[in-house]
Amino acid sequence: MGQVAWKGMFLSLFDYKTEKYVIAKNKKVGILFRIVQLSILAYLVGWVFVVKKGYQDSDTSIQSSVITKLKGVAYTNTSELGERLWDVVDYVIPPQGENVFFVVTNLIVTPNQRQGTCTESYGIPDAVCSKNSDCPEGEPVAAGNGVKTGRCLKTGAVNMTGTCEIFAWCPVEKKKKPKTPILGKAENFTVYIKNSIRFPKFNFSKTNILDTDNDSFLKTCRFSEDDHYCPIFHLGKIVSWAGSNFQDIAVEGGVIGIQIEWNCDLDKDASECHPHYSFTRLDNKFTEKSVSSGYNFRYAKYYRDVNGTDYRTMIKAYGIRFDILVNGKAGKFNIIPTIINIGSGLALMGAGAFFCDLVLLYLIKKSNFYRDKKFEEVKSSTKKPIQVSVNGQKKSNSLDTLDQLKHLQSVET
Amino acid sequence: MGQVAWKGMFLSLFDYKTEKYVIAKNKKVGILFRIVQLSILAYLVGWVFVVKKGYQDSDTSIQSSVITKLKGVAYTNTSELGERLWDVVDYVIPPQGENVFFVVTNLIVTPNQRQGTCTESYGIPDAVCSKNSDCPEGEPVAAGNGVKTGRCLKTGAVNMTGTCEIFAWCPVEKKKKPKTPILGKAENFTVYIKNSIRFPKFNFSKTNILDTDNDSFLKTCRFSEDDHYCPIFHLGKIVSWAGSNFQDIAVEGGVIGIQIEWNCDLDKDASECHPHYSFTRLDNKFTEKSVSSGYNFRYAKYYRDVNGTDYRTMIKAYGIRFDILVNGKAGKFNIIPTIINIGSGLALMGAGAFFCDLVLLYLIKKSNFYRDKKFEEVKSSTKKPIQVSVNGQKKSNSLDTLDQLKHLQSVET
Amino acid sequence: MGQVAWKGMFLSLFDYKTEKYVIAKNKKVGILFRIVQLSILAYLVGWVFVVKKGYQDSDTSIQSSVITKLKGVAYTNTSELGERLWDVVDYVIPPQGENVFFVVTNLIVTPNQRQGTCTESYGIPDAVCSKNSDCPEGEPVAAGNGVKTGRCLKTGAVNMTGTCEIFAWCPVEKKKKPKTPILGKAENFTVYIKNSIRFPKFNFSKTNILDTDNDSFLKTCRFSEDDHYCPIFHLGKIVSWAGSNFQDIAVEGGVIGIQIEWNCDLDKDASECHPHYSFTRLDNKFTEKSVSSGYNFRYAKYYRDVNGTDYRTMIKAYGIRFDILVNGKAGKFNIIPTIINIGSGLALMGAGAFFCDLVLLYLIKKSNFYRDKKFEEVKSSTKKPIQVSVNGQKKSNSLDTLDQLKHLQSVET
Repeated sequence: MGQVAWKGMFLSLFDYKTEKYVIAKNKKVGILFRIVQLSILAYLVGWVFVVKKGYQDSDTSIQSSVITKLKGVAYTNTSELGERLWDVVDYVIPPQGENVFFVVTNLIVTPNQRQGTCTESYGIPDAVCSKNSDCPEGEPVAAGNGVKTGRCLKTGAVNMTGTCEIFAWCPVEKKKKPKTPILGKAENFTVYIKNSIRFPKFNFSKTNILDTDNDSFLKTCRFSEDDHYCPIFHLGKIVSWAGSNFQDIAVEGGVIGIQIEWNCDLDKDASECHPHYSFTRLDNKFTEKSVSSGYNFRYAKYYRDVNGTDYRTMIKAYGIRFDILVNGKAGKFNIIPTIINIGSGLALMGAGAFFCDLVLLYLIKKSNFYRDKKFEEVKSSTKKPIQVSVNGQKKSNSLDTLDQLKHLQSVET
Repeated sequence: MGQVAWKGMFLSLFDYKTEKYVIAKNKKVGILFRIVQLSILAYLVGWVFVVKKGYQDSDTSIQSSVITKLKGVAYTNTSELGERLWDVVDYVIPPQGENVFFVVTNLIVTPNQRQGTCTESYGIPDAVCSKNSDCPEGEPVAAGNGVKTGRCLKTGAVNMTGTCEIFAWCPVEKKKKPKTPILGKAENFTVYIKNSIRFPKFNFSKTNILDTDNDSFLKTCRFSEDDHYCPIFHLGKIVSWAGSNFQDIAVEGGVIGIQIEWNCDLDKDASECHPHYSFTRLDNKFTEKSVSSGYNFRYAKYYRDVNGTDYRTMIKAYGIRFDILVNGKAGKFNIIPTIINIGSGLALMGAGAFFCDLVLLYLIKKSNFYRDKKFEEVKSSTKKPIQVSVNGQKKSNSLDTLDQLKHLQSVET
Repeated sequence: MGQVAWKGMFLSLFDYKTEKYVIAKNKKVGILFRIVQLSILAYLVGWVFVVKKGYQDSDTSIQSSVITKLKGVAYTNTSELGERLWDVVDYVIPPQGENVFFVVTNLIVTPNQRQGTCTESYGIPDAVCSKNSDCPEGEPVAAGNGVKTGRCLKTGAVNMTGTCEIFAWCPVEKKKKPKTPILGKAENFTVYIKNSIRFPKFNFSKTNILDTDNDSFLKTCRFSEDDHYCPIFHLGKIVSWAGSNFQDIAVEGGVIGIQIEWNCDLDKDASECHPHYSFTRLDNKFTEKSVSSGYNFRYAKYYRDVNGTDYRTMIKAYGIRFDILVNGKAGKFNIIPTIINIGSGLALMGAGAFFCDLVLLYLIKKSNFYRDKKFEEVKSSTKKPIQVSVNGQKKSNSLDTLDQLKHLQSVET
């Protein structure tokens, strides 16, 4: 190609190509299309931009640190334990003050357990026996507390059934738990929850504690619907906000979730970014089966006597586990998601046009007419075209005609 | 502008503009385009809608609560510990029954450690000495158990190397661990895993426990491939499902992950939403380096003797840590994602058309012809147009020609 | 319809319809459009494909297991505790070596607490009294250590205010903590962090430990900027990398986050997938309020004396909690996201064209001209069309003219 041809090609790169449109003077479809356009625009502006804040870049990888500290003491006077005062160190497990903590509300204490032989707890099917051979030596009792020693202990002389003797931590635990929770007063304990968060992408930090000069505020306030910046929660209220009753849950135990949600619009002032608390019961309280309701676990305190023998106090603790779950999202204006959302909104308009085209071309009365106008048939000349003979020349139809006509005119003149 | 003009403009708002299409009677490209369209449609229907359920709004912020409880006892008789029965309180750490629990399978016990001076454990490079000045007083032994007292203790009279004396919890731990796990019987222990989940967006709750009236089911069943609603797992089987052998892992320790996945289609019945369990070994078992294989930690039980002096039993516990990881997703029909997915699928068709255009306009034999048909050149008349002289008149090319021709005809006739 | 008509309809299915374009020979808009196209292309290639790796299918559900082990001993000699050596078992809580661990750096020890009566700690507002009736029996002291016994204890004979007597673990804790941390030497302790990860979707596993034959490497190395594959960290350096000073944080306590990020491109070799560490202080160190700064908790060791009475040593431990947070993402080439991203990029071009159209049709001088060319008005024939009289025939305007002209020519010749 010559230099001129190359230049022409290069220049033609900067010709702007734009779709040719047919204006269909059909008000029905026109109005329909405007409605579709408006809907998409409303969706784009209302949903994508206002509700979903599509103009923002977001950071959901929140870094969170939770520190909890309980306060409160309770005095109990039971026949088993005598006078006893319970303080934080006694009733919070584990003591570290992390985002999961457990408060003892009820307990079965089995003191002075030592390794030795005793009768298995009554009522365990696998330990029921009538003769020694029912208790093969060394076999563990299924769902029991020890291994069988080979002896069947009978309580009555002519009694037909007895219970296997076992080697275990003796004596074994009694099955009864108090019906009123021993530590029901835990309802009045308070927990201080300190939650510091950070959004690394935007280098934004905040805590859930009011930045106040009033020191006594943090000592006397209580979290409530009105006071969202006081981080001190009344345990009984947490449970009631989660839809349960503290004295009920205290008997069998349960799991309460405390959700802290940070939804920060960093285009606004940092002080507009607030924590939102919600409280739910995480274990399914509706399950009434004895085997699967509530929350409890066993632990022991180990001692050693003067002779060097270990003994322990085993405690079956019923109580409430509080799980603090922090999640959050921060958004800040960014040009890239803005463009992408506008772009894909406009692309959606294409889909709207496609739908209206269907109506125009196939569903209305004059569809045929519009179809002819919209679609222009062309065929390459080697295939048999509809021909028009002009001055003995063969011409392909449609736009080619133009060139031919131009030629014709110049010839004629 | 006059009132009429305004009215005209307003009415023209409701004219429907639709792209003008050229129908290329080229079967090859036509078929290609239909194939592309069908592919996109298949992708949209098959992948986006059927597989990915693109018509659903989804909630991935699952709220989960896990309660675990182990059952089982084991009897051991070793020279060091004598006859001993291990129950849940002894071998589960921590006792709380959360989503991470550790089962002791092997241990090195160092009883009666007291603060005092003794020989550092043999074989620690930093504690090897030949004279007292090799053990500077007060300097901690690197990777050792205490601080040097300044004395070098030699076992033989003419021995050239000795070991530093240290101030530490004495005696120090012996390095040997039993080659067969002391608590190998832990393989037969069972763990009851209760998992309650909730999808807050749809307010949907479920547990992994079969809602049955048959109480004894939960006492006798074992989880297996066939019985996915029994929440009681045999520890040995969990390890074997994770691809390891319990007796192997029991010697050195390890970490097993129990994943519970909830993938709920809430358009179906709630009973169709099942938990799916999978088991993997989380620590890299292929690492054979002594320093980095297995899982163990040290803890101690602290006692106080009659004189008020503290002493402790230190235990190096090898065992298996089970991590229960719950994740899930719930989906429910929602009109907005449905529309968005249909819209973007249609937009994708535009991309398909673009591709076919490339073929039509540049890659086939008659590309030139179709290019001329598809693109119609216009130039505003002030710029110098390619002119065709008809009856001495100057005319711009292309569509303008039409108007000119019309004029021409009427003049001629 | 006849068979021929059906066949025609079927064949017309394979006609390729392509938008008719108008080439506007306007260099300004043309260049503008090319710039827009290039921007979108640059965005698509540069941002979507190179930076965001849009051609990859990604897995963010990383399975991670963390095992930590501290090393180091410290010797202290205080008036309260006497000579004492602290080893790992003493200063790490909890001992299990999970992803969250706490190192004691400072402590207040209250030994030999027994249940009994004593004076409440001085300075608690609720325990200030002037007469016995100020201390109602059985009422817990708000933010105090026990329940009031009903007696007001006065230190001076004529002193107007005294302090209530309480039933509690006596004696109560003294409020003073050492200003220099008792375990300041913890700065030199090291922690070995083993992190095994797995991306289940791609079945890819890796650990943060260099796969080396040199065993001594793991015993002597220390993590540093240059040595990212050594998993042994110096506690003091972790704190300084997080922007704090160890001796400062050791007094009051704090929370340090250790983030391990795995960003793996699985199209490259597995050895290219490295862990990236970052260290941040998670509790807000800028909060200077006494009530909300630092990190501490209380725990106790329980003992039993020869008479069977429980007593305990309560420890208020200040220290540093380390939270190891693992997150990651793996990507691998996949055809579906590639197609989707290319498609939506092209769809975005449509948005660019829309923008240029606005410029061409409304913002430049010759907008009117281009508007006429782009939009072709059609009206169904029942409505009154703009007519051109040629040889007495009525013709609708625009392309229809062509057909008429063809007719005309053949008539004329």
